[in-house]
Amino acid sequence: MSVIIDLAVFPMDKGTSLSPYVAEMVNIIKKSNLPYKFGPMGTSIEGEWNEVMALVNQCFEGLKKDCDRIYMTIKADYRKGVSGRIEGKLKSVENKLGE
Amino acid sequence: MSVIIDLAVFPMDKGTSLSPYVAEMVNIIKKSNLPYKFGPMGTSIEGEWNEVMALVNQCFEGLKKDCDRIYMTIKADYRKGVSGRIEGKLKSVENKLGE
Amino acid sequence: MSVIIDLAVFPMDKGTSLSPYVAEMVNIIKKSNLPYKFGPMGTSIEGEWNEVMALVNQCFEGLKKDCDRIYMTIKADYRKGVSGRIEGKLKSVENKLGE
Amino acid sequence: MSVIIDLAVFPMDKGTSLSPYVAEMVNIIKKSNLPYKFGPMGTSIEGEWNEVMALVNQCFEGLKKDCDRIYMTIKADYRKGVSGRIEGKLKSVENKLGE
Repeated sequence: MSVIIDLAVFPMDKGTSLSPYVAEMVNIIKKSNLPYKFGPMGTSIEGEWNEVMALVNQCFEGLKKDCDRIYMTIKADYRKGVSGRIEGKLKSVENKLGE
Repeated sequence: MSVIIDLAVFPMDKGTSLSPYVAEMVNIIKKSNLPYKFGPMGTSIEGEWNEVMALVNQCFEGLKKDCDRIYMTIKADYRKGVSGRIEGKLKSVENKLGE
Repeated sequence: MSVIIDLAVFPMDKGTSLSPYVAEMVNIIKKSNLPYKFGPMGTSIEGEWNEVMALVNQCFEGLKKDCDRIYMTIKADYRKGVSGRIEGKLKSVENKLGE
Repeated sequence: MSVIIDLAVFPMDKGTSLSPYVAEMVNIIKKSNLPYKFGPMGTSIEGEWNEVMALVNQCFEGLKKDCDRIYMTIKADYRKGVSGRIEGKLKSVENKLGE
């Protein structure tokens, strides 16, 4: 569970109403049972590198069935031997926030 | 309020304990009074283009005081005349999620 | 000249033939007289933070005239007091490449 | 050959002299024989989805041997049935550039 990625993926050939495609991606992510956090600009997913990248593949293959052009951005943060980071990173920062 | 950005910014010359720097950024973002959502891989911020970019500047200037090397990623999604999108985008997708 | 950004910006409401819009962005970047390197997935631009961000603004404002939805990604790498980095970073890596 | 990615990957626990690590990544990319273009903020690589993602894996595994914390960004642009795009995208824009 040493990687968190932020994944954003959308079709470029389907106009501007993208929520059905994003919902399809989130459904695929939910089925993986990996910890995730859905956000307005991307979804954070935590797991081992291979698990997380297998899920990226599934998202891409799912979208490819219907779409001829797809844009994707991934940010990945790997930290050896540390897990529970989706919650841990948030708490670590929140503890340091001033009033 | 037509832009949402996802902002991630961190020093590259301070080792791997980055939460104090991230907390400083989140404090700057909170003071702006723009709607935001803090996540494990970045913070989403909503506003007019000029407001949001002014805040990016403030974050950069804040970090520059202490850091000699800084990495930043921004994803921006502009949609003319649509606001309340931090919540709106999330709800729009959530309504389409299957069980 | 201490910042390099990688900038990618395109309309999301104009279908998949995006080269006219990308060409418009590159023309704006050329007029700035900042060093730049145009690539298949984005354009690298070097300058002081304020110069580079002013150019990002111009690109956004140029595209906004014609487009109702715009997606942008920026990666920025700031290194205090170092310039000539578009060429310098490339050479520094090339010198270390094996055969 | 329908995908181009822009790949940037670097250790976060090795200070700010990153060119040896970047050179190692570029060596791995060269050995793949996929078309690529090395830039100051990332490397563009073209191939089929599976080829390109296998190469991302190799880069990650290569870096993981020496590094306890790694940051990676990927932008991917998939276009069904179109190849030669590293050169094609550049030419398509260059043809439209004004003076």
